[in-house]
Amino acid sequence: MNRAAKSPVTRHVVSINDLSNPEIEQVFDLAQGFLDELADKSRPYRIARSTDAGARHILASLFYEPSTRTRLSFESAMLRLGGENITSADPNTSSAAKGESLADSVRVVSNYADIMVIRHPRDGAARLAAEYSSIPVINGGDGSHEHPTQTLCDLFTLKTKKKNLRNLNVAIAGDLKGSRTVHSFVYALARFGAHIAPRPAPGMELPAHVDKRLREEFHCVMDPHAPFGALYRTPDEPHQPALFAEPESDILGRDEKMAAVYVTRFQKERWAEKNQDYPTVDADFLKRPEFLQASVLHPLPRVGELDAAVDSDSRAVYFQQAAYGVPVRMALIALLLGIRKGKSLRAVAGGFDKQRLPPYDQPRDEGLRCVNSNCIVHDSSELPYVRNKFHVIKVASPPAYKLRCAYCETDIEQFVVASKKHHWFTREIASLLHTDGQNFRELLAFSDASVAEKAGYRVRKHFGPHAESADAGTGTHGD
Amino acid sequence: MNRAAKSPVTRHVVSINDLSNPEIEQVFDLAQGFLDELADKSRPYRIARSTDAGARHILASLFYEPSTRTRLSFESAMLRLGGENITSADPNTSSAAKGESLADSVRVVSNYADIMVIRHPRDGAARLAAEYSSIPVINGGDGSHEHPTQTLCDLFTLKTKKKNLRNLNVAIAGDLKGSRTVHSFVYALARFGAHIAPRPAPGMELPAHVDKRLREEFHCVMDPHAPFGALYRTPDEPHQPALFAEPESDILGRDEKMAAVYVTRFQKERWAEKNQDYPTVDADFLKRPEFLQASVLHPLPRVGELDAAVDSDSRAVYFQQAAYGVPVRMALIALLLGIRKGKSLRAVAGGFDKQRLPPYDQPRDEGLRCVNSNCIVHDSSELPYVRNKFHVIKVASPPAYKLRCAYCETDIEQFVVASKKHHWFTREIASLLHTDGQNFRELLAFSDASVAEKAGYRVRKHFGPHAESADAGTGTHGD
Amino acid sequence: MNRAAKSPVTRHVVSINDLSNPEIEQVFDLAQGFLDELADKSRPYRIARSTDAGARHILASLFYEPSTRTRLSFESAMLRLGGENITSADPNTSSAAKGESLADSVRVVSNYADIMVIRHPRDGAARLAAEYSSIPVINGGDGSHEHPTQTLCDLFTLKTKKKNLRNLNVAIAGDLKGSRTVHSFVYALARFGAHIAPRPAPGMELPAHVDKRLREEFHCVMDPHAPFGALYRTPDEPHQPALFAEPESDILGRDEKMAAVYVTRFQKERWAEKNQDYPTVDADFLKRPEFLQASVLHPLPRVGELDAAVDSDSRAVYFQQAAYGVPVRMALIALLLGIRKGKSLRAVAGGFDKQRLPPYDQPRDEGLRCVNSNCIVHDSSELPYVRNKFHVIKVASPPAYKLRCAYCETDIEQFVVASKKHHWFTREIASLLHTDGQNFRELLAFSDASVAEKAGYRVRKHFGPHAESADAGTGTHGD
Repeated sequence: MNRAAKSPVTRHVVSINDLSNPEIEQVFDLAQGFLDELADKSRPYRIARSTDAGARHILASLFYEPSTRTRLSFESAMLRLGGENITSADPNTSSAAKGESLADSVRVVSNYADIMVIRHPRDGAARLAAEYSSIPVINGGDGSHEHPTQTLCDLFTLKTKKKNLRNLNVAIAGDLKGSRTVHSFVYALARFGAHIAPRPAPGMELPAHVDKRLREEFHCVMDPHAPFGALYRTPDEPHQPALFAEPESDILGRDEKMAAVYVTRFQKERWAEKNQDYPTVDADFLKRPEFLQASVLHPLPRVGELDAAVDSDSRAVYFQQAAYGVPVRMALIALLLGIRKGKSLRAVAGGFDKQRLPPYDQPRDEGLRCVNSNCIVHDSSELPYVRNKFHVIKVASPPAYKLRCAYCETDIEQFVVASKKHHWFTREIASLLHTDGQNFRELLAFSDASVAEKAGYRVRKHFGPHAESADAGTGTHGD
Repeated sequence: MNRAAKSPVTRHVVSINDLSNPEIEQVFDLAQGFLDELADKSRPYRIARSTDAGARHILASLFYEPSTRTRLSFESAMLRLGGENITSADPNTSSAAKGESLADSVRVVSNYADIMVIRHPRDGAARLAAEYSSIPVINGGDGSHEHPTQTLCDLFTLKTKKKNLRNLNVAIAGDLKGSRTVHSFVYALARFGAHIAPRPAPGMELPAHVDKRLREEFHCVMDPHAPFGALYRTPDEPHQPALFAEPESDILGRDEKMAAVYVTRFQKERWAEKNQDYPTVDADFLKRPEFLQASVLHPLPRVGELDAAVDSDSRAVYFQQAAYGVPVRMALIALLLGIRKGKSLRAVAGGFDKQRLPPYDQPRDEGLRCVNSNCIVHDSSELPYVRNKFHVIKVASPPAYKLRCAYCETDIEQFVVASKKHHWFTREIASLLHTDGQNFRELLAFSDASVAEKAGYRVRKHFGPHAESADAGTGTHGD
Repeated sequence: MNRAAKSPVTRHVVSINDLSNPEIEQVFDLAQGFLDELADKSRPYRIARSTDAGARHILASLFYEPSTRTRLSFESAMLRLGGENITSADPNTSSAAKGESLADSVRVVSNYADIMVIRHPRDGAARLAAEYSSIPVINGGDGSHEHPTQTLCDLFTLKTKKKNLRNLNVAIAGDLKGSRTVHSFVYALARFGAHIAPRPAPGMELPAHVDKRLREEFHCVMDPHAPFGALYRTPDEPHQPALFAEPESDILGRDEKMAAVYVTRFQKERWAEKNQDYPTVDADFLKRPEFLQASVLHPLPRVGELDAAVDSDSRAVYFQQAAYGVPVRMALIALLLGIRKGKSLRAVAGGFDKQRLPPYDQPRDEGLRCVNSNCIVHDSSELPYVRNKFHVIKVASPPAYKLRCAYCETDIEQFVVASKKHHWFTREIASLLHTDGQNFRELLAFSDASVAEKAGYRVRKHFGPHAESADAGTGTHGD
């Protein structure tokens, strides 16, 4: 209820990028400990003893889409930790059926529990939930956006099978467009130094904003002529130290073999009809030389794209990957709640790839809106609770600014910016966004000049250094 | 299973009137204690320690209608008390889908748990459940009838914000016809001495039987010309001592200001289409002088009638109201189960406004039936389990008797009563119902004379004191 | 996760015949103990204290069909034992909605829990689940096949009411064709020496394979002229010692009275339309002399076939029968998990009526398939995970072999067997199946000669003792 003045930071995990690399390593250290404890049959309770201090914390599961693995493994993790669960597994039996907004539901439920996991069909829904929650929110999958705890399980599985991710090639096959697990996973692979070999079903390539982000912000270089096809090469020196220490040696050169192939299903709930050429991973597929030592991962469920005959292949690790859901989620919950003495994510704000510019944040009915029609900001129930809120991203080369929706992280590259104060607008965004401390309260973005004009703004006529300094003289931008 | 001979009374909370005023105060004392314990961050468990004796009691939640707040706050309350939950959140996945009656389901489930909360679309369903349950039944909302635990949260919120309810004006806005929370709330307001200002959407006034009950039994006087509109004035001396001790002083006279406005949503699940003139509470509404110090309450969910912009207004208390759901429900459960030493509702039968006459109780296929088509007695699944059962209510002025359905509490004022023994019927009910100890087994009520005649009864010809004594001589009414 | 080398046997309870008679008695002994503990009101927790060692084991409930009694009583039992629950109550909110197979779901969930109960609309689904689970699977009802824990409740109720089952007459009324509870129950009755009086609704007789199995394998003799109608007479010396020791004495001879009548509802989810002549058990029915001392059982829910007026009859035991669900399921779970020191079903493989011949087991696309269209082997989601797998049953008189589907236990009596090695087939099955140790890997069954011919096999021309020995000389059947 009331938060104490000195209460620790409430951390949310909406994107895999909400965790720094060292924080992910901390999750895995703790997960390995839980895994060992769970495997110890001499302990009849099969419960991590050392977490007694956290006993009977409550996890609220709010699921607006079907789930078996994610929900049940979260609930099992909470029970194994000594905690408890309250669950809404079906929007048809919750107050959503009466028209309640997600924002209101989250505000209410955050008074009934200590931590919350949420799944929703809309991109960005989990970020909206985090804005309105007084307890930590974990994203259990939001539309086609992200599924960060699945990525933690995926990485943990790779860590167990391969000792080093740096420079390893990981193929990602199937519906790369609609699969939220893929989006979280490719960011993590790039951050830990792996190369990414996209193998999309026709028409189901990575979304443009994910592709650009890999190249512009994660410094990947797309090599269309790698020995076995297109590959994002991650630079030798990633931004943060790589997760795994020892490189693997092998017969094939590292450019010629795959360390893993990550298979995903066709997301039938997001697309109208299935592509006939959807790739299938089967015994034949795995006979290719580059896959001889490739672990086969799949976030599951599978619906035909991964042949059951592969189950008995020693390279198949997808059921183990699902099993790791319990210790990995135990670790994340324990760290978010600060259950274990001295082990907590709540001490600092944390996260990877922090924004250096303050967000652009305007009321919902003013100016530019997110261009992604599946973004939570376009959900009629949420209209009173969302804002036109974007992270301002500075692109290095060619120098430019773009706007990234604070909810669904879709980028907008073409827009004009108007000054509320001066009543003009300009395409030369840099002239307005150059001040770091600025909070953009005076600015209003529009999709293009005609919209800005309709809103009563005139084009800025005398543009140039001269005009800029004149501006600087007449206007004062508050903090 | 088998109940011991000296077992305490099994108390149910189907109506707010099942609790006396002192019992409600007892709930609030305990709730305040739980609230303090939950807020104490030095206790890592966030569980009320002193309830260890009740650990692992089981609450069964049987929900035949959607719920988020009520179900999850009950389940959270049970867990915070150290108890456990079993849940049926969806009639489509319960044996109701196979056609099982509520009466049978309740009899079965009362063997699996220690206490039960039930929500159902039919008025009176919770009372039927209580008749068939061997464990305490709490009404989590039955059709348009009542929602007593919501009222406990509402009153507890008012108690926190206003120190005294007596003589305070509380506006109730919106769908007063279909909102079960309103019906429980107005009875409670009247009992604790508040004045009630109904602000219905057009055509959604309080049901006639609720209005009459406020006036006839709770001694409210409707004043249509109060300074800010129609008002039920509660008499200075309510039936029982008022809940709160200190009157509030203020600039406006007490007749000119509102202590609170209670907003309710349009109950779309009960009505065909929404009234266009449904009132909206927003910043403008709250600028009126009489609302300057009015707390804004809402049972939630809201669907447009309470503007999101009010959320940041200091008068908005509806999210706190929702948060109080946990400590208040913890207290009610603890008292019903007798978990805390010396604090139990099970010692006495209790309740407010006890009936002084024995009920009229006949088989389902004999005589008068409840006139409310949404009453549980008309549910085809329940036909074998319900009776034509009415409380006999004596109205003081003008002197009369009416029948109140024992399930949904809808009143019947016009009826005739027949004597099974003498084979005649009469409209002069008083002549038959004058004996207090009588159990009415010899009597059969019909909606009017023609129905009684069709059933083979003749009108009583020789009516009068003489006839009365003749009757007394020939018939003997059993106990 | 990884199973230790010396781990105990993982026992499943898919059919009542998976438990031997002594094992059933062990369940009942433990259930009686739990019942006594639950009834002891001086113990405030109402939890079996002696099971502390099993605290916080997790039961996963996977329900693909609606349930109230089975799911909630299992969950209550787990909580009373000190355990915990994770629940998927609705296939529409689980990954089944995305097309995941039962086999995959079970493999995943068996990593999240310690024991599992499953309900599914397909016959044989629970056996498939058991094949893919690493934890004990309990069948909570699979199509029209079996419902063994209901039978344990039924038998336990009879044990409480009647001290001896041997030679007692038990009538089974209603939908004997579709009721899975009936199928498990009649096997158990025969095994414990009771006589079975089938009283089917017209057209809803026991399935042919159940009828034949009672006669051929449980040694029942159908007597169509018993005093009160058709009766399966169970032989005086059943295969294993009878459950109950003391025969009952009475006024009527034992041939003339019923010890119990077991009523079942019309299974509307399995049949197109209800028979108009569905029998109803009411006060009149129970007035017949043979029912004077008959306990009335019903697995519930009831939907009209058992009159509510019977509820107050002292012979009605169906609500007690439902209440026994908790202690009986507590006992079964405790034994399967080995919670109680020295009391475990995991020490030996166990089961009644073990197969003496190895199973016939071929890939799904080769040869004979199960003839039951509702068998799990025909579920399109499960096609990659099922096999054409049959138990080979030797019938004594007239000597013959038949194939029993390893999933749904439907029998196939007419088939031909081909030799993969010799490329011929024969109707004279005995000539091929005579060797006990044989695993039938060389054999392929077909529904008839024409199918075998289409598959490229020729009829075996030179059949006879001579040919047999020639075969034995040329062919070697692997182990």
